[in-house]
Amino acid sequence: MGLRLRPVDTSFYDLFTEQAQHLVGGASLLAEMLADGADHADVARRMREAEHNADESTHAIVRKVNTTFVTPFDREDIYSLASALDDVMDMMDEVVDMILLYEVKVLPPELSTQVEVLQRCAELTAASMPNLQSMQSLEEYWIEINRLENAGDKNHRRTIAKLFSGEFKTIEVLKLKDIVESLEEAIDAFEKVANIVEQIAVKES
Amino acid sequence: MGLRLRPVDTSFYDLFTEQAQHLVGGASLLAEMLADGADHADVARRMREAEHNADESTHAIVRKVNTTFVTPFDREDIYSLASALDDVMDMMDEVVDMILLYEVKVLPPELSTQVEVLQRCAELTAASMPNLQSMQSLEEYWIEINRLENAGDKNHRRTIAKLFSGEFKTIEVLKLKDIVESLEEAIDAFEKVANIVEQIAVKES
Amino acid sequence: MGLRLRPVDTSFYDLFTEQAQHLVGGASLLAEMLADGADHADVARRMREAEHNADESTHAIVRKVNTTFVTPFDREDIYSLASALDDVMDMMDEVVDMILLYEVKVLPPELSTQVEVLQRCAELTAASMPNLQSMQSLEEYWIEINRLENAGDKNHRRTIAKLFSGEFKTIEVLKLKDIVESLEEAIDAFEKVANIVEQIAVKES
Repeated sequence: MGLRLRPVDTSFYDLFTEQAQHLVGGASLLAEMLADGADHADVARRMREAEHNADESTHAIVRKVNTTFVTPFDREDIYSLASALDDVMDMMDEVVDMILLYEVKVLPPELSTQVEVLQRCAELTAASMPNLQSMQSLEEYWIEINRLENAGDKNHRRTIAKLFSGEFKTIEVLKLKDIVESLEEAIDAFEKVANIVEQIAVKES
Repeated sequence: MGLRLRPVDTSFYDLFTEQAQHLVGGASLLAEMLADGADHADVARRMREAEHNADESTHAIVRKVNTTFVTPFDREDIYSLASALDDVMDMMDEVVDMILLYEVKVLPPELSTQVEVLQRCAELTAASMPNLQSMQSLEEYWIEINRLENAGDKNHRRTIAKLFSGEFKTIEVLKLKDIVESLEEAIDAFEKVANIVEQIAVKES
Repeated sequence: MGLRLRPVDTSFYDLFTEQAQHLVGGASLLAEMLADGADHADVARRMREAEHNADESTHAIVRKVNTTFVTPFDREDIYSLASALDDVMDMMDEVVDMILLYEVKVLPPELSTQVEVLQRCAELTAASMPNLQSMQSLEEYWIEINRLENAGDKNHRRTIAKLFSGEFKTIEVLKLKDIVESLEEAIDAFEKVANIVEQIAVKES
């Protein structure tokens, strides 16, 4: 067994990857929540746990920034990225919470399309975080996130039009509109993460 | 009677305390607004005055920062704290305004519970502002505000569930949901004040 | 023909004026959208184009800040002003979008009053941007914007009261409230532009 000369150090890249992997888990719980016959209370409980774990990862990054002398990129950029990733989780948690709390009976299929967009965004984001080290292949990531956000926006507009089509009772429109708008904010939050990654890449290149 | 060698100077601590005392007054007007048989137009008029006075206190702090050479803590922290205290007043004013404007007939008792949380937050905040000078006993303050915010959040969720229970007409749900959400934002605004106080205390210790 | 010693340079003042002129166009499209018998899809298409052109102007300013060594006032103030002007366009675009998407049948006349306020704000803003060079006559501009914002706020409150008067079906209230609130946010966004101009003028004087 060799000598360990430096303490084992979880890098910022590992921590960002960990944070983004929580988003993959969160998006997957959101998909579960929309499935027929889902146990809403149980999924919401697991989502709360997932959100709590994501918070821990965020705090680990903040602690590391405050105790590290040389950081791989600007301190404020590390804070922004950690906080933007955390915002996505909060938005997804809010959607799950609303579905439980509002006791929505029928969830239109358009919601599942938005959650598929969120799942794809989460996977792409998690796969790209390790690339912050080499600064390679990041452009493809943020271009694809922008494309997904546009697709999500089109689907959002179709969903709102459907809600107002007369098909739903007004009280259900009130509930569903809140949920649909929070789903769109979650997709926007992924785009904000991608914008911050782009800014970091431009600065460092 | 001794000589007064330096001009009388209202300290930043006095000004922050004054700002927080306006919040005690605002929370109390909010409670009056919810009381049976309240004269909504009259309470709203007095709330507008209270909000105006709170604005004056905020401007006094901003003027003092701009004309003082040595400040007790970072200029930007003074601005953030003054602005966060001002935001609470704006949120409480908005709630009073909505109750008047929406002509809500029946206000569910859950709203009073939230206003009690706001009153307790306001008292705690006003009592803690003078402690910024010694930086003593602040931790108890922000821990208690966080506890109150959690209690407020639980009550908020119960209230939303009740609004959607079928007990209210949809148009009343639309009005009450706005009011209930603004009440929660006012509680969150108190938590933001506590977070800023915590940051200042950590920096200065 | 004389020698041209320096490259022709579109100044920051010209670019801000161009950005504000897009707002005059946007407010005018908004007025068209509210007119009886308007072709909503066609106006919305032209609004999308106008919003795209306004984005180009914003990017031109950002590019110019990044490649100019000496700027006429603080870089961050140039960013804030460009971004605040861009926000107004986004808000007006959102209103047009909602009217198309929600398929609102009857638009209460109060909405036209708000759009008239927006048109007046846009004209004043466009007329004042060239004055950033001399820093003259700017005070009249921001005082008048504040007056218009107050008038808009009074009209907004009357409109909300009317929406809740029982005259409209609940589903229409839900749609119209969104639209009315976005109109008010657009007026607030003009006030934010005026506040930034005021801050710049105070700093530079």
